[in-house]
Amino acid sequence: MIELYTDATPNGLKVSIALEEIGLEYNTHRLYLGGDQMTDEFTRLNQNQKIPVIKDGDITVTESGAILYYLAEKTGKLLPKDIAERTKTIEMLMLQMSGLGPYFGQLLVFAAAWDNKFPAVTERYQKEVNRLLGVMNTLLAGNDYFAGNHYSIADIAFFPWVRMCYEHPIGALLETDKHSNLIRWYETVAKREAVQRGLLVPEPHPPEEQFKAFVGAVVGLGDVHS
Amino acid sequence: MIELYTDATPNGLKVSIALEEIGLEYNTHRLYLGGDQMTDEFTRLNQNQKIPVIKDGDITVTESGAILYYLAEKTGKLLPKDIAERTKTIEMLMLQMSGLGPYFGQLLVFAAAWDNKFPAVTERYQKEVNRLLGVMNTLLAGNDYFAGNHYSIADIAFFPWVRMCYEHPIGALLETDKHSNLIRWYETVAKREAVQRGLLVPEPHPPEEQFKAFVGAVVGLGDVHS
Repeated sequence: MIELYTDATPNGLKVSIALEEIGLEYNTHRLYLGGDQMTDEFTRLNQNQKIPVIKDGDITVTESGAILYYLAEKTGKLLPKDIAERTKTIEMLMLQMSGLGPYFGQLLVFAAAWDNKFPAVTERYQKEVNRLLGVMNTLLAGNDYFAGNHYSIADIAFFPWVRMCYEHPIGALLETDKHSNLIRWYETVAKREAVQRGLLVPEPHPPEEQFKAFVGAVVGLGDVHS
Repeated sequence: MIELYTDATPNGLKVSIALEEIGLEYNTHRLYLGGDQMTDEFTRLNQNQKIPVIKDGDITVTESGAILYYLAEKTGKLLPKDIAERTKTIEMLMLQMSGLGPYFGQLLVFAAAWDNKFPAVTERYQKEVNRLLGVMNTLLAGNDYFAGNHYSIADIAFFPWVRMCYEHPIGALLETDKHSNLIRWYETVAKREAVQRGLLVPEPHPPEEQFKAFVGAVVGLGDVHS
């Protein structure tokens, strides 16, 4: 049985979706990011104090991208064996982990948590996320999925973040309508039953509580929000 | 023969170091990031218009973390076969790709390229990078390398970014002195002959040209720097 330590954030949802897609049994521990990630017990699981984390027997894995990789390697699913296809999948996984995730994250910080206190900074991240959406749309031209014609951990990594772009209020800052390949991909992935099940794990905290936790966890870095 | 498209930036240097460690033959194409990354020819190699990129016969790989993975898979070097050790290596690679890289990058943007125009924003990234250096120092307690006792692509991914922390003027903003495990690791890796050779590829552009390119490429996103 896999123990999953998570919350209903984009990085957390990647792992519940992957577990549902692969069909592994798991036990969910829901954290509240207003402090549960700072306890000694959780810090022993992840020194970096972030969700998601899984524990599978003696193996503990942190970093959502690494958890997706582990689950795929363990089961032989969602990551092709052929080196060219496998590398393309890892490449797209890295683009999500180093690109869309961090930059959409910064957009949320400056547009929402800091209430657009620095409009030029918000605009920087708005432009960067729009640019990335355009790149992603081009990469999906002629491809069903990010790594070609096979659904993979790369799609699972992108999905909850693209969902934020389309469904979170901050998404209104983005040019989400103009990317027809991305919309087609998003609608295809959203229809998958395992994706729909994964999106329900864990139950989200009420939005106002989640926002309060986000502000406390992220913006506290700068100590300027009081 | 591997074709390497790169510049002497932290992400670029990861790949030249890995190629030197593994001992693969390669041919270096040096780009100037003041515009060479925007040409049609280069955009065909990487829609995301970033270095490094490699071309190995029919396989083109972008994203430094994916290139490291590919080179390791291709040669069976620098990435263990055992699933626990392999996963730990990928986990540390993801921590670099999603953590130290993007956040040190933002620190450079706000402290240097935007000349500390938004001190609270600079402070946010300063604190986050300091926090990450502390996490990395803890992870290295009792371990020779990031993924345990084997030198791996995770160390190669971290090395050029840690080097920035210790050698770039912006590193003066960071608490680099207090992390004894990190310092020990840094000094050990820096002594490797392959690392020393990799750091020379490609020849860096003069610092003032490189800074001009950086400002143009990164800060242009916000259109507030003129």
